[in-house]
Amino acid sequence: MKIGVYPGSFDPVTNGHLDIIERASKIFDKLIVAVLVNPNKTPVFDIDERVELLKETTEHLPNVEVKAFKGLLIDFMKQENAKVIVKGLRAVSDFEYEFQMALLNKKLEPSIETIFMMTNSKYSYLSSSMVKEVARFGGCIEDLVPEKIAKKVMKKLNKKYAEMEENK
Amino acid sequence: MKIGVYPGSFDPVTNGHLDIIERASKIFDKLIVAVLVNPNKTPVFDIDERVELLKETTEHLPNVEVKAFKGLLIDFMKQENAKVIVKGLRAVSDFEYEFQMALLNKKLEPSIETIFMMTNSKYSYLSSSMVKEVARFGGCIEDLVPEKIAKKVMKKLNKKYAEMEENK
Amino acid sequence: MKIGVYPGSFDPVTNGHLDIIERASKIFDKLIVAVLVNPNKTPVFDIDERVELLKETTEHLPNVEVKAFKGLLIDFMKQENAKVIVKGLRAVSDFEYEFQMALLNKKLEPSIETIFMMTNSKYSYLSSSMVKEVARFGGCIEDLVPEKIAKKVMKKLNKKYAEMEENK
Amino acid sequence: MKIGVYPGSFDPVTNGHLDIIERASKIFDKLIVAVLVNPNKTPVFDIDERVELLKETTEHLPNVEVKAFKGLLIDFMKQENAKVIVKGLRAVSDFEYEFQMALLNKKLEPSIETIFMMTNSKYSYLSSSMVKEVARFGGCIEDLVPEKIAKKVMKKLNKKYAEMEENK
Amino acid sequence: MKIGVYPGSFDPVTNGHLDIIERASKIFDKLIVAVLVNPNKTPVFDIDERVELLKETTEHLPNVEVKAFKGLLIDFMKQENAKVIVKGLRAVSDFEYEFQMALLNKKLEPSIETIFMMTNSKYSYLSSSMVKEVARFGGCIEDLVPEKIAKKVMKKLNKKYAEMEENK
Amino acid sequence: MKIGVYPGSFDPVTNGHLDIIERASKIFDKLIVAVLVNPNKTPVFDIDERVELLKETTEHLPNVEVKAFKGLLIDFMKQENAKVIVKGLRAVSDFEYEFQMALLNKKLEPSIETIFMMTNSKYSYLSSSMVKEVARFGGCIEDLVPEKIAKKVMKKLNKKYAEMEENK
Repeated sequence: MKIGVYPGSFDPVTNGHLDIIERASKIFDKLIVAVLVNPNKTPVFDIDERVELLKETTEHLPNVEVKAFKGLLIDFMKQENAKVIVKGLRAVSDFEYEFQMALLNKKLEPSIETIFMMTNSKYSYLSSSMVKEVARFGGCIEDLVPEKIAKKVMKKLNKKYAEMEENK
Repeated sequence: MKIGVYPGSFDPVTNGHLDIIERASKIFDKLIVAVLVNPNKTPVFDIDERVELLKETTEHLPNVEVKAFKGLLIDFMKQENAKVIVKGLRAVSDFEYEFQMALLNKKLEPSIETIFMMTNSKYSYLSSSMVKEVARFGGCIEDLVPEKIAKKVMKKLNKKYAEMEENK
Repeated sequence: MKIGVYPGSFDPVTNGHLDIIERASKIFDKLIVAVLVNPNKTPVFDIDERVELLKETTEHLPNVEVKAFKGLLIDFMKQENAKVIVKGLRAVSDFEYEFQMALLNKKLEPSIETIFMMTNSKYSYLSSSMVKEVARFGGCIEDLVPEKIAKKVMKKLNKKYAEMEENK
Repeated sequence: MKIGVYPGSFDPVTNGHLDIIERASKIFDKLIVAVLVNPNKTPVFDIDERVELLKETTEHLPNVEVKAFKGLLIDFMKQENAKVIVKGLRAVSDFEYEFQMALLNKKLEPSIETIFMMTNSKYSYLSSSMVKEVARFGGCIEDLVPEKIAKKVMKKLNKKYAEMEENK
Repeated sequence: MKIGVYPGSFDPVTNGHLDIIERASKIFDKLIVAVLVNPNKTPVFDIDERVELLKETTEHLPNVEVKAFKGLLIDFMKQENAKVIVKGLRAVSDFEYEFQMALLNKKLEPSIETIFMMTNSKYSYLSSSMVKEVARFGGCIEDLVPEKIAKKVMKKLNKKYAEMEENK
Repeated sequence: MKIGVYPGSFDPVTNGHLDIIERASKIFDKLIVAVLVNPNKTPVFDIDERVELLKETTEHLPNVEVKAFKGLLIDFMKQENAKVIVKGLRAVSDFEYEFQMALLNKKLEPSIETIFMMTNSKYSYLSSSMVKEVARFGGCIEDLVPEKIAKKVMKKLNKKYAEMEENK
């Protein structure tokens, strides 16, 4: 069985992520969406919320699983018996960083491959930070994140930014 | 009347910015330099200082106005009845980020256009952060910021860095 | 009156070109689409055909004119009393070439500006050569060139490639 | 069964190509190496030679097939019942061109995906043209093309360049 | 005597740095590795440790000196009577930033040149931050930093990350 | 003695080339400008003319020699006892091609290094082809090529383009 792993922070999942997940799920027998617990960053959505939003977003895709992971991606890959990392590329700047990560992962574990898929051009402007930026300044995020979770995401972000205003 | 808006942080305005402002002011009937109040960042020059430095720098340009704005750029555009955003490009890395912002703004408000102008190659190394970096380490910023405001900028930066040394 | 000039080979005009023309026509009082007679290249559509296809494509835009030109673009600009060149950018590679052309034009004639507009992301894969490539191998070009002229373009390309097959 | 297609000119196959073939063959149940018959170009190795060199190079890989194709890649894909195109990326310039081709193919046939693999960094300087350039000026191509076929390739290229010298 | 200066943070020195140092030391009569004391950043290795690790790493290179410096690089250059800055490039993103720095330095002091060397492709994924990232998550850094100092670096990083865990 | 080699086609030499030659001549004890005899291309200026124009252009630089070479650059390097190739970079696209050439040369002859210098930003739009393009359409090339040779170059190009017009 060919298993692919699509890693990321997903803080929160966007329509660009969902597009890659849907397309990658057709290439592999099983696709694991792997949500990184990154001790260096303070996400807006905690790890359980991010996993939950992804599960809701992907429940129509029977061969997709969502899991949290800590530490090196290649260790998670071994534990899941997966050989292929999937990454989405939007632009040249993504490309260079991802290229270096792919080379590093190959160096650390030669049996693991990274494949890249181009983000659908209609989502090439989209990133989790842009979603948060738009929400913060009162813009509409309805076409930016998966329909199912848009309200939940908006609510959380509004609450978060209200708190930030108060704490100033 | 064709109105252009040139947004940025301008912390502080550089000769590269002035070059774009002068050239863009010839393309539009009115050009608004829009200074972003960004709650995420701590600028060296506060919003009033940045607006003031820009006003002084552009007083020879009768069709240029300087205004502060908060929130989403497209909301400011609507309020000013402006349809065109002007951005300066220095390099490929600028290009990609600005490309994504332009697509996002178009997504949020399809009637608004972004046009790009190439920074004069003699200023391609210039940015507000480089000005601050040079000043911090005792370099000369006279050719980096508009002549009129060079002394004022230097004085402020010297005071700022002296305070930082003391507070260590 | 602000006059913009959008130069190119337009061999043939694509939906990506039309998108830029429509958007640029809103920024200027008049927009001239300038079709280059390039002695170094053998276009598939001759200069009259290219001008004709563009006229048909832009007849709904009252402030757009289509003209052929030979020689240096800046000479054409002076003759038309225009100060601003409009170029569409699809990708980083476009950007670098166009950046150099803009600098060269500015060097040759400092009063002339070049502004850049991002191609709509849904046409970022499109170029006149891609249209010809697709047509040559029997693909459908209906969504690639403006609807009005699709049949005419297809007919011409089919005839052209049939002749090439015969002459082998 | 998941079928991947790795298209190219392979004039001639290099160690960089072989690296991608070996790694991609592990991701798919079957990998078809598809050699393009391009009427626009005059290859040094004719289509039969290119296919033959690839067959020899890949005979240790049981799930790899080598086939020639004409026309649009997506038509070949349908005929082979394959859904995934594999491309190797060496650098940013590859990336942009391939990005546009991937978008175009997706436009022409939405059910077809393109995935990208990074060329092993030790082959990042390698291309078929570089092999021919090196051979032409008397350099050694032994580490540039697969060991098995190095002599055959060198012999052919030497013959070719000797003819060119004579015909001058 | 031609003196080159190779500046950086070296937090810690990697095999990629060592590769540049070895190659650059052949181009100049003397090469100074200049370790930046940057008041804006909190390095993992303090300035004495970074200098020490570099001295150990380069002790086989008689014409290489290691020195710490504060302030503007061009001031350090003058003080050392050196005219040429050496920088390693791994990728396009390096290139753009370094390009701007080189232009800025040339602006501030026209007699100073910057030359660039390409990082050996087998180290193109390597940076000091990647070393720290790998170490943090328990990966092996033996091939990433010079052999001589690998244990020392690992010990320091393990201690550091253990403290961070405790302080949470 | 440190010998540098600056290779190129120089068809014809531009002010951008001269800038690199002047700056590189300060880094090496001797700098050889190596003019490539490329059997694949038909230059406008033949090899003797190109060498002659370069000699005239560089006669104020006592440690610069101009030589023609055929075949692989690394063979020429060995014959001249030179270890360092000098290349000018204008933009990202230069960078990628030159990166691959540097890696290839290092692969073919590991003792040879390539160093890169940034073209002065005021010449970043300049290339030999742009000079020919401008001349062809009647533009002024006086600031584009070294002053000393501008008339000679213009005369040659005018003659050449007049012949081309006649032969049509």
